[in-house]
Amino acid sequence: MAVYTQVSAEALSRFLTRFDAGELVSAKGIAEGVENSNYLVETTRDRFILTLYEKRVAAADLPFFMALLDHLADKGLPVPPAIKDRQGVEIHELEGRPACLIRFLPGVSVSHPTPAQAQAAAQAMGQMHAALADFTLERPNALGPEGWAPLAERCGKDLDAIAPGLRGDVQKAVDRVLTAWPAGLPRSAIHADLFPDNVLMLGDRVTGVIDFYFACTEVRAYDLAVMHGAWAFDGAGKRFDAEIGTAVINGYAGAFGLSDAERAALPVLAEGAALRFFLTRAWDWLNTPADAMVTRKDPLAYWRRLEFYAAHGSALFA
Amino acid sequence: MAVYTQVSAEALSRFLTRFDAGELVSAKGIAEGVENSNYLVETTRDRFILTLYEKRVAAADLPFFMALLDHLADKGLPVPPAIKDRQGVEIHELEGRPACLIRFLPGVSVSHPTPAQAQAAAQAMGQMHAALADFTLERPNALGPEGWAPLAERCGKDLDAIAPGLRGDVQKAVDRVLTAWPAGLPRSAIHADLFPDNVLMLGDRVTGVIDFYFACTEVRAYDLAVMHGAWAFDGAGKRFDAEIGTAVINGYAGAFGLSDAERAALPVLAEGAALRFFLTRAWDWLNTPADAMVTRKDPLAYWRRLEFYAAHGSALFA
Repeated sequence: MAVYTQVSAEALSRFLTRFDAGELVSAKGIAEGVENSNYLVETTRDRFILTLYEKRVAAADLPFFMALLDHLADKGLPVPPAIKDRQGVEIHELEGRPACLIRFLPGVSVSHPTPAQAQAAAQAMGQMHAALADFTLERPNALGPEGWAPLAERCGKDLDAIAPGLRGDVQKAVDRVLTAWPAGLPRSAIHADLFPDNVLMLGDRVTGVIDFYFACTEVRAYDLAVMHGAWAFDGAGKRFDAEIGTAVINGYAGAFGLSDAERAALPVLAEGAALRFFLTRAWDWLNTPADAMVTRKDPLAYWRRLEFYAAHGSALFA
Repeated sequence: MAVYTQVSAEALSRFLTRFDAGELVSAKGIAEGVENSNYLVETTRDRFILTLYEKRVAAADLPFFMALLDHLADKGLPVPPAIKDRQGVEIHELEGRPACLIRFLPGVSVSHPTPAQAQAAAQAMGQMHAALADFTLERPNALGPEGWAPLAERCGKDLDAIAPGLRGDVQKAVDRVLTAWPAGLPRSAIHADLFPDNVLMLGDRVTGVIDFYFACTEVRAYDLAVMHGAWAFDGAGKRFDAEIGTAVINGYAGAFGLSDAERAALPVLAEGAALRFFLTRAWDWLNTPADAMVTRKDPLAYWRRLEFYAAHGSALFA
């Protein structure tokens, strides 16, 4: 959420000469996205996002992400593909980092989506899934079900410092979710992190789906489960908004469809999605000094979602 | 250099309705300026910078800064005044902070200015000084000569942890500079921080002078001395670039004029300017943990400038 690598105006001007992108008019470092350095760049022709990939995005994964974005953009979906230079190259190097010049998309991320906005965003997810039916590249989900037990193990007894007895409860939840995890559901490339932050909107219209850096090959309906947990609760996970929840499911089902098997699996998929965000937040929480300038996100906000889904999931998605 | 206060899209949309500024299209938190929160905001009409003032800018000083910017903008200088709302109000409150919607200016800050760029920036300073001749508001210089001895005192013996013997050398330098400090030179509102970061350019043309949050009433030629130290050395203060130094002096003198008395005072003004940045950097250095996420700026980079001016100042500005 900061600019880690400084790019001088001189270096940026030279970089832009590789592209048919016009000449540099303005560049502002922006505080956005995962741990990358981002600049909002304006040229005599257009606006772009310049992204320099820092440690958290592996350079080896960039071809997958860029192919995914190209695939979706080619089918008319509002995603930000990388701009090709005159030689057709998308992934460059700048200031010693992998770097892409990326299409700028208008729109803002809403903090408190309305049901109409949630429905539009879920429709956009359905359209993405439809467009990805013939996308063949694969990327394993580094934060998928196989990773949950080891991550819980690595958090270890420190979990009890977050809440008393949490370690034992987490172990039970991991066991329960993995035991019930569905086999045989359709898999696909998915976004895997479609929080309201990652959807740009103007009014009720989706103008951009961004931040594909967790995209991977996974059970397709898991993407919807992640979105449900991210949109249909308040930040602390204390209040479920049934209207938003329904809008997410209906928006997706209307745009792409949801099979009976997928619908039946949603309770455990939603528990799994909550577990994934709980575990990564718990790990970050336990490994970030309390006085660091990075905001630690409360892991219990996702533990509460997990408990909610465990208690009400079957009724919720019936 | 970060976004300290989050402004939701919903709150920003509501805020914009106070102005004739169009509707919200995009908003990106930008990593810019002193310790304020800044957003680059695009509407259906135009682009703006939204600034929320954090602790480092006193709300009581905002009317001075905004009147100064209005004064300069009214005379056609490329500065970013605050936009007035429909009631004529410039200074608002948003998310509990004083906030201004500010004109967006094109251009980029160069990291390694050429002599032509330095000359153009110094001309812009001269034009500002000319435009400020009839500006009557006053603001004391909180980081002016009266503050240097107390600040050196507060740094105390810790200065010796930056370099052996530094504390004694600093005391001598403060005494020497204050003793030689000129009386009777013309005073004016000045920028007081005209580093290359604070000048936006397109090629050799100045498109913006920004970040007036150190502006104050001070010996006018002190502004030029600050600029000379900021532009005519490499970052570490180890290499003086005579060509840039000459361009700064000539650019300013050509645009506004430099009296014999001012020219004669430049060596001590330049030492004083170097001392001011040395002292504030030393204070920040000694009071910022080495592992903090804020970049500490090496105070010795300004100590070297001070030594350079002490040794060569008389010859330099003759």
